[in-house]
Amino acid sequence: MAATYERSGVSLEKAGTIVSRLAEAVALTRTDAVVADLGGFAGLYRLDDERLLAASTDGVGTKLILSRRHGRLREAGMDLAAHCINDVATTGARPLFFLDYVASSSVDLDQLARLVEGAAAVCRSVGCAILGGETAEMPDVYQGDELDFVGTCVGLVESAELLGVDRVREGDVLLGLPSSGLHANGFTLVRQVLGDDEPDPDLLLAPTRLYSSDVEQLRAQCDLHALAHITGGGIPENLARVIPAGLQARVETTSWPRPAVFDWLSDRGVSEAEQRRVFNLGVGMCAVVSAASASDTAFPVIGRVEAGVGRVILD
Amino acid sequence: MAATYERSGVSLEKAGTIVSRLAEAVALTRTDAVVADLGGFAGLYRLDDERLLAASTDGVGTKLILSRRHGRLREAGMDLAAHCINDVATTGARPLFFLDYVASSSVDLDQLARLVEGAAAVCRSVGCAILGGETAEMPDVYQGDELDFVGTCVGLVESAELLGVDRVREGDVLLGLPSSGLHANGFTLVRQVLGDDEPDPDLLLAPTRLYSSDVEQLRAQCDLHALAHITGGGIPENLARVIPAGLQARVETTSWPRPAVFDWLSDRGVSEAEQRRVFNLGVGMCAVVSAASASDTAFPVIGRVEAGVGRVILD
Repeated sequence: MAATYERSGVSLEKAGTIVSRLAEAVALTRTDAVVADLGGFAGLYRLDDERLLAASTDGVGTKLILSRRHGRLREAGMDLAAHCINDVATTGARPLFFLDYVASSSVDLDQLARLVEGAAAVCRSVGCAILGGETAEMPDVYQGDELDFVGTCVGLVESAELLGVDRVREGDVLLGLPSSGLHANGFTLVRQVLGDDEPDPDLLLAPTRLYSSDVEQLRAQCDLHALAHITGGGIPENLARVIPAGLQARVETTSWPRPAVFDWLSDRGVSEAEQRRVFNLGVGMCAVVSAASASDTAFPVIGRVEAGVGRVILD
Repeated sequence: MAATYERSGVSLEKAGTIVSRLAEAVALTRTDAVVADLGGFAGLYRLDDERLLAASTDGVGTKLILSRRHGRLREAGMDLAAHCINDVATTGARPLFFLDYVASSSVDLDQLARLVEGAAAVCRSVGCAILGGETAEMPDVYQGDELDFVGTCVGLVESAELLGVDRVREGDVLLGLPSSGLHANGFTLVRQVLGDDEPDPDLLLAPTRLYSSDVEQLRAQCDLHALAHITGGGIPENLARVIPAGLQARVETTSWPRPAVFDWLSDRGVSEAEQRRVFNLGVGMCAVVSAASASDTAFPVIGRVEAGVGRVILD
């Protein structure tokens, strides 16, 4: 499996030979223009000597079920666009355009409009054009009023500005860019612990924070090396993607404030270990910067890159 | 609704104000780089003075239900990649890369591998790299073993090579590029007329023909003006997208051989009028070329562009 071909929900342990088949199929399509993995949050394609395209496809996941039930589809649209744009931003790319796909058993036009309006609001804020969209009615595929919403973002980055694991050095500092809450990950677990006394939807369904302006600010203030978008798999799995072999990241988990939703999860019996494995814990994007440049930012220092083989260690 | 923002399955008549909301939302994201509609099979984004990116997102639609039930998911993967690449090819672009999304209640890894292998085979044949993919498990959204499969293709075209409605002239000739059968459209109707005595799956489920080499051949032999990908909406709706105001296309429907599946549909009581409205009738891509250059190709002449306001007339 190509490293840029991450597939959430697929356990590598149970996957075995099938993953090899996937890897082989994808590898057969590889051309010289495909850039070897630099973190894997977006695919990279060399356009010419100076520039690369970055692209990412994603859905909102099971958060969409709660968003729909609570009449928060505009926010789900924001989630999708922000998630895809954040993925692309990890490469250093600015987003060019976005395309979406909405499917359900029967298209509810008001729901469709809310989703697209939410996505458009986020896209517009960063100059990302909605270039296309598709709607499908698949009555025997989708249950009842459920729907799925899939987005693709394509961005552009100058070769000289490319971020990623290749730039990360021993002694680099980790900065924590705050999340708005759960973003769009971990909702399979959230739904398991949801009782009849559901909390205020704002607690669970706050739209994913868009990091474009934070990243611009970091570029201006720091020597930015890499960005890890903290999604499914939490800090350990996602931060590990930008830590080179021979180094490890040590994260001080008390060094930033956690949004209230994580207390709610603790109250519901979700252990700290489980939360670390599944959620962003309040850090939606982790920036790796040179130590000398770290003091110039408003974002909290949450850890360091050091020699070691532990990948990511949460203290 | 932006003209490049076609949404199948959405009746424009019933849509009313909602469509205006969609159009407004999308229009708010429009930047100077977005190129006004030239046919609308793919979105166009100006990269620089010389080049544009073309992009299209789509699914396989309800054909996927039959493909899955008949164990033809490899072919469904081929359908998806070919459909997206054909959309992008209508602009004159060559495909650069493809991304996909597979979702179901529980990911079946063997099914996933078949889908990706099929898509990869098609992508590889035209030098299109699979740049990323995502898999989602959404147990309360998808029914039973059903799944959805969504793809996005991004291509590149030189400004001077851009095809579309702006190039089409009175007197131009229409060439019919043969389809392999139904491709991936009209399966809601097919499923309605399917009885217990289902035909050979090969009749219904032949994978979508990829037109990349046909288009290359046409470019070399003819003065190619525009391409219409004949998908949902049939020849009338899709060909109309490349016919300028003040002109109309006249199509001789007896001028090409129809694949056997259309006889099967007639036998099942699907009228000629209905077939024209829903299916490709054997022409999966329609090329508009200058009259002087039309005689040099092996593809049948199926009609002409003439003065008139009928959009597309099927004789």
